[in-house]
Amino acid sequence: FQSKLPHVGTTIFTEMSVLANQHNAINLSQGFPEFDTPDFLKSAINQAITDGKNQYAHSTGMPELLEEVGLLIKRQYEFELDPQKTVTITSGATEALWVAIQTIIRQGDEVIVFDPAYDSYEPSVELAGGKCVHIPLHAPDYRVDWEQVKSVINSNTRAIIINSPHNPTGSLLRENDMQILQQLVLDNELFLISDEVYEFITFDGERHESVLRYPDLFERAFVVSSFGKTFHCTGWKLGYCTAPEALSAEFRKIHQYVTFCSFTPAQIGIASMLQNHTEHVSELSSFYQQKRDFLINSLADSRFKLLDSKGTYFLLVDYSDISDLNDREFCHWLTKEIGVAAIPLSPFYQNPEQDKVIRLCFAKSEKTLLEAAEKLCQL
Amino acid sequence: FQSKLPHVGTTIFTEMSVLANQHNAINLSQGFPEFDTPDFLKSAINQAITDGKNQYAHSTGMPELLEEVGLLIKRQYEFELDPQKTVTITSGATEALWVAIQTIIRQGDEVIVFDPAYDSYEPSVELAGGKCVHIPLHAPDYRVDWEQVKSVINSNTRAIIINSPHNPTGSLLRENDMQILQQLVLDNELFLISDEVYEFITFDGERHESVLRYPDLFERAFVVSSFGKTFHCTGWKLGYCTAPEALSAEFRKIHQYVTFCSFTPAQIGIASMLQNHTEHVSELSSFYQQKRDFLINSLADSRFKLLDSKGTYFLLVDYSDISDLNDREFCHWLTKEIGVAAIPLSPFYQNPEQDKVIRLCFAKSEKTLLEAAEKLCQL
Ligand SMILES: CSCCC(=O)C(=O)O
Ligand SMILES: CSCCC(=O)C(=O)O
Repeated sequence: FQSKLPHVGTTIFTEMSVLANQHNAINLSQGFPEFDTPDFLKSAINQAITDGKNQYAHSTGMPELLEEVGLLIKRQYEFELDPQKTVTITSGATEALWVAIQTIIRQGDEVIVFDPAYDSYEPSVELAGGKCVHIPLHAPDYRVDWEQVKSVINSNTRAIIINSPHNPTGSLLRENDMQILQQLVLDNELFLISDEVYEFITFDGERHESVLRYPDLFERAFVVSSFGKTFHCTGWKLGYCTAPEALSAEFRKIHQYVTFCSFTPAQIGIASMLQNHTEHVSELSSFYQQKRDFLINSLADSRFKLLDSKGTYFLLVDYSDISDLNDREFCHWLTKEIGVAAIPLSPFYQNPEQDKVIRLCFAKSEKTLLEAAEKLCQL
Repeated sequence: FQSKLPHVGTTIFTEMSVLANQHNAINLSQGFPEFDTPDFLKSAINQAITDGKNQYAHSTGMPELLEEVGLLIKRQYEFELDPQKTVTITSGATEALWVAIQTIIRQGDEVIVFDPAYDSYEPSVELAGGKCVHIPLHAPDYRVDWEQVKSVINSNTRAIIINSPHNPTGSLLRENDMQILQQLVLDNELFLISDEVYEFITFDGERHESVLRYPDLFERAFVVSSFGKTFHCTGWKLGYCTAPEALSAEFRKIHQYVTFCSFTPAQIGIASMLQNHTEHVSELSSFYQQKRDFLINSLADSRFKLLDSKGTYFLLVDYSDISDLNDREFCHWLTKEIGVAAIPLSPFYQNPEQDKVIRLCFAKSEKTLLEAAEKLCQL
């Protein structure tokens, strides 16, 4: 039996979380909040279950949730669309990415991705018959060199995958990036998959440059969002994909055969949360900025060099003054010997950089962050 | 933009459920129970949510749920396996089918399916680069002609998809079928995808011939199961795939990029349900047999000819004495004019038979079944 993904093992997130549990380490590796989803939302989903809303949802998503997503997009990005035709609820952003890729990528297509890249992009593209062309981004600021992007575009190039705010680096695409990108996509008739799962988490007053702010670019785009990141419920596996009507129609055809629909009571609960607590989204950036700053302050006396995080709930730190181990070895050592689990950067690269940089997740309580920082400050 | 599924629209289940809602018809079309999931299970899932079990599950499934599935398989099929390595929890049986197909089907592979076939098989195979070879089954008993199967096997044949108890016909594969199938699969080094989502719903003392009763056959098989069908919670989208360790390892690689993991609190709830209420599964067949018999009795005076249902929660009925319309037209007419929604059989066939047969779902209260039967008896 020949594997269709011979080079793939379990994800680095599973690897590190399992190791963290084995060694009882503080888990700053896999990205998930330590704190719980809001009580209002828990009550709303409990109520839906109790009320017997336990059968199939519409394959495209519950109409009331689509409606609320449409209003959210209008509030947030000043963009109006018909959510019943352009938004599709998925079983997590992972499914949205998978289905968007399946929708547009054909045998022999090339897809431009920026390394460090989220680990699902490449296998998803390969299983659709395509090939990833990797553009490496470099520490410390991980900016895109658009001239380099232009130089790899050819007649096989079908799509570009972007991710801003960027996991794992916390960097952002700026207005200027988006304008160049729009030109490139339109001139070359490419498609765009925009992974915006951290869209509501940006710092220092930075604005998230959603593709939904660029109507001409949106015409050729799939925008991927995550309720799990926004509402602290990564285990509910609920996300959505926003795309123009014609692209959404094709997306929905495939989605109905991948998962058909997603957990009904959570859709009802989140619709109610969005309707009744608009402040949750608007306060999310400052909520996480406090955590970022708390972690930065707690690491001030450490020998780690801290990189800049402008969004997401991740902070990169450079350990080159501490160890010569490569990043994966260092993360294993850190977990087993120091009791703090982190994520190495090399699995996000086709050709790993030689940087000694790891990722810390700060979606944790101050107590946890402080405990971890104390251990890290001893190095 | 060229569609990758040009011949596909929305599923017939969505089409008919939407029509039923529009016309306020009694919905015996899409297969889902009208009654609710057990109170014990609702409490267990609510408790998990309240307790804050709202972050990512293990990608392969929560260990306690895998454990319980292993025990269930042992109780039910007298087969022992290590569920931590052979069972993977998925976001519904649909995802399990999708991922199993992605795991084994490559460009140019042929897959044998039996028509009437569940509508997700063919697009899933096509998107993996394969092609379905259709073997039609015929009314009234829909038995497989294994000589015909042998005649289509060639060097491109990669897999067979079976489905017993069979949706939409309610027919079963018997021990004799399974022995021939095992020989065919082993002799030709094929893979088997066995859709067993109605495994716990068989009638008149018939035994479900799970692939898990045939260890040699299992060595080349993916067995797909559904908690939604078993526990009356189709909207929770929780299923699983059981396969030998090596096949499961490949299945899991792909699953982690399709949905990564499934709704955590439901996994905890169902684990508790399986542990505390083994009688739910053992009583399911007689629960549904009563409903089948109630519907049969209620239709005794109608002009429909009833076919035999030996499993699932579906009953086929022949309307050739009532109307000349084709089955899709008849279902639309029945929904709009008579107020009962059903599913036509033709969408399950590559080359639809000329039979005038539709599918009724009897996973409904006796009140609903009686109301529907009264309308149908007027024809
Ligand atoms: C789906 S597990 C990975 C979670 C995550 O997005 C991350 O840690 O980067
Ligand atoms: C996923 S909707 C279809 C439900 C079902 O299995 C059926 O009606 O046959």
